[in-house]
Amino acid sequence: MPRNRQVLLVARPKGIPAAEDFQIAESEMPKAGPGEFIVRNLLLSVDPAQRGWASDEANYSTPLPLGSVMRALAVGVVRESANRGVAVGEHLYGWFGWQDYCAARPADILRRVDRDAAPLSAALGVLGLNGITALLALEELGSPKAGETILVSTAAGGVGSVVGQLARDRGLHTIGLTGNETKVAICRAEFGYDDALNYREAGDLAAAISSAAPKGIDIFFDNTGGWIADAVVPLMNAHGRIIQCGTASVSSWNPVPAGPRRERAVLTKRLSWNGFVIFDHLDKFAEAAERLQHLVARGALAYREEILDGIEHAPGAIAKLYHGDNLGRLLLRL
Amino acid sequence: MPRNRQVLLVARPKGIPAAEDFQIAESEMPKAGPGEFIVRNLLLSVDPAQRGWASDEANYSTPLPLGSVMRALAVGVVRESANRGVAVGEHLYGWFGWQDYCAARPADILRRVDRDAAPLSAALGVLGLNGITALLALEELGSPKAGETILVSTAAGGVGSVVGQLARDRGLHTIGLTGNETKVAICRAEFGYDDALNYREAGDLAAAISSAAPKGIDIFFDNTGGWIADAVVPLMNAHGRIIQCGTASVSSWNPVPAGPRRERAVLTKRLSWNGFVIFDHLDKFAEAAERLQHLVARGALAYREEILDGIEHAPGAIAKLYHGDNLGRLLLRL
Repeated sequence: MPRNRQVLLVARPKGIPAAEDFQIAESEMPKAGPGEFIVRNLLLSVDPAQRGWASDEANYSTPLPLGSVMRALAVGVVRESANRGVAVGEHLYGWFGWQDYCAARPADILRRVDRDAAPLSAALGVLGLNGITALLALEELGSPKAGETILVSTAAGGVGSVVGQLARDRGLHTIGLTGNETKVAICRAEFGYDDALNYREAGDLAAAISSAAPKGIDIFFDNTGGWIADAVVPLMNAHGRIIQCGTASVSSWNPVPAGPRRERAVLTKRLSWNGFVIFDHLDKFAEAAERLQHLVARGALAYREEILDGIEHAPGAIAKLYHGDNLGRLLLRL
Repeated sequence: MPRNRQVLLVARPKGIPAAEDFQIAESEMPKAGPGEFIVRNLLLSVDPAQRGWASDEANYSTPLPLGSVMRALAVGVVRESANRGVAVGEHLYGWFGWQDYCAARPADILRRVDRDAAPLSAALGVLGLNGITALLALEELGSPKAGETILVSTAAGGVGSVVGQLARDRGLHTIGLTGNETKVAICRAEFGYDDALNYREAGDLAAAISSAAPKGIDIFFDNTGGWIADAVVPLMNAHGRIIQCGTASVSSWNPVPAGPRRERAVLTKRLSWNGFVIFDHLDKFAEAAERLQHLVARGALAYREEILDGIEHAPGAIAKLYHGDNLGRLLLRL
């Protein structure tokens, strides 16, 4: 009888979750209660948002209690079902946690995955939260127009790389910010950015962005916030849009750090600055995934993955993400 | 032959424009060139926005060259016309500057004023930029819904007092912030706020606002920014809207002062933070003024004015506005 390996959150992270905040434990195999089904996880997701889920700072979801299995998305296959709507052998994308097996309910499913339409791993990235976030945030908050300039922070990441490609397809001038030279090259060669900058080596970042964006910036798709955003905001054009999709460059929000006040820029430039959280948009999930699947199928949407083999990589994986040393969507294969 | 008294901007203000930054000079009477007309100003406007027009900091309009007549709105009567579209005797609201007489063109007119529909002075306030700003900013950026809570900073001011009344009419719970006890009383008694607080005497301002707004804040109509806004933003509800309409509490933006970073609040609360500048909305001006005129006519919109007699009060008038010692819309009568 197999055992169920589970990655438990055992300490409240200070800032970015570190390997020491987790512990791998083995437990009994879960049993399917009434209406439940057992998912055998095949791929586990590693997401920047897990930092927020693990933290007890103000956030958009309740913090995970200590001792719980780490909240995570995963793709798995149904092994056993006590629910008529879910068949053994089906592949599912959902809230199955950092563990081998999960007793799940229909509400935990985000999407049913056709395993022949695309590689299974795509369901966790370009066709999952990342790609759908990119598509919906850009369309609903960005109002992109051909000829405008968009700047994307974490341009090579799971969300940013899709934003860049979708924006280029709509005729925008696309500029990517990323954290090393390899990623700069990938942004240009694979994700079709018109220009890409290494924010760590740019020297005067504002000056470097300004030369890459001589007409100013109309849309700032911001996954970092902090000092990187400080270089961008003064370059925004009138009626510019800032889409706040992450705050990866700020290591702790407790206490809230100081930065240049934005009130005057928001007022005089008539900026529209909005936060985007994909879980507000679950009703548009299936349709968005389908649109992205068509793009992937005809080769119009490139993506990169970095897959770590084995659940033992889970505890350090969030820190790896924030330190920027992965090249593409970070996943764990069980 | 009368002379034309003009208030000239003679020094670039440091922060809030002071009396010393202006000088009153007398010049020849202007002559109407082809297509022009001569307006005899009757009432001059004193606006917080004049601070920005006089400054050379980043703003939404070109800074006024030193030595120019101070840019200002005014209500006046046409004395002489070389334009077939503008008749002698007509009353106009427009860009006629801080001076007795102005040679103007049709593009300088914001609205033609029916002097029997409401007191002339209303054209500069509740039926002018103030009232129209309140109406359009609230409707277009606030998406107000009955049962929601709105907090207005500078609640007794020309814009804030209209926002409060319009929001109450739509069934919102209205809370006003203002700077002295007299204004607190006026907010409650005349402008129909459900609650009003003196931000100078509130002690822990965030705690005071929090007791006045037990369900949190859905709309923050912000005319101040700065430390007052810092007390409000953490109390915003998910999907809250911040309308940035002014930054009166910050005395200089050069250099940009520091304050608590907002990226995380914008993201996790999915805030929508937008700047509003009335001059983007001139096409909706006439219709909005008419809607407000109906409310004034049936006594559904209270307003206050403080009228200073004589152009000699102009140089110190902007500072007076920022020091908060006026009770109602500040105007100069010539």
